[in-house]
Amino acid sequence: MELNKILETCLYAENLDETEHFYSEILGLKLIRKEEDRHLFFRCGDSMLLIFNPKHTSEVQTYVNDRPIPLHGATGSVHLAFSVDQKEFKEWKKRLKNKNIEIESSVKWPGGLKSIYFRDPAGNSLEIIESGMWNIEY
Amino acid sequence: MELNKILETCLYAENLDETEHFYSEILGLKLIRKEEDRHLFFRCGDSMLLIFNPKHTSEVQTYVNDRPIPLHGATGSVHLAFSVDQKEFKEWKKRLKNKNIEIESSVKWPGGLKSIYFRDPAGNSLEIIESGMWNIEY
Repeated sequence: MELNKILETCLYAENLDETEHFYSEILGLKLIRKEEDRHLFFRCGDSMLLIFNPKHTSEVQTYVNDRPIPLHGATGSVHLAFSVDQKEFKEWKKRLKNKNIEIESSVKWPGGLKSIYFRDPAGNSLEIIESGMWNIEY
Repeated sequence: MELNKILETCLYAENLDETEHFYSEILGLKLIRKEEDRHLFFRCGDSMLLIFNPKHTSEVQTYVNDRPIPLHGATGSVHLAFSVDQKEFKEWKKRLKNKNIEIESSVKWPGGLKSIYFRDPAGNSLEIIESGMWNIEY
């Protein structure tokens, strides 16, 4: 019996309007659900990226069928890495540049795979990395 | 060109010893990398769960081949959901109970799928959910 699937990865952002624009228009993720001032849920392949307003989710108790959804919420900068095919990696670099997103750092890992790092509007630290890291095949 | 793979999902915890015990022994994830007082990297299926000490990663600049890894780090409670086969869901509930992990809430979603919520030692909000949520097949 093994936990072998992360279904929901979360980030936190107080300004969901600029966050929605960034993840939809700049990164091209598909918005699946939205609750004004509380959350944005994006599909990302076979998992979900959930972005919550921590001022809401850490303070306002919500319920599903009368059962409480535990409070959560973080401040600061959360890290997240997307993986892309090596042939698409250069295109992402170009795309971010064209959209005026600053590449904060570019890294070449031991073994030769490359990463770029940039920030979402809330300051979360995003990475796009060439596929093959961690010897994970998919 | 699509971002369709979240490779690295992150949580933050200051006490990495109790965190390592929890994720290795209670949740059974495989530890891949460890840097004392900085991070624990766990494999989870075809992705990675990275747990960082935010006091380190938000303050201490690290480098790979002379290139900076951008600072990051969050405080508060980050949410994360694992998905498991429906037949294993009940077993996880039992396992957590046997390990004296408090189930903070149990939820039945519209459509019938069930979730349990519990906390890691740092207070992050973890969820185990029966597979099928978000109409994601895998």
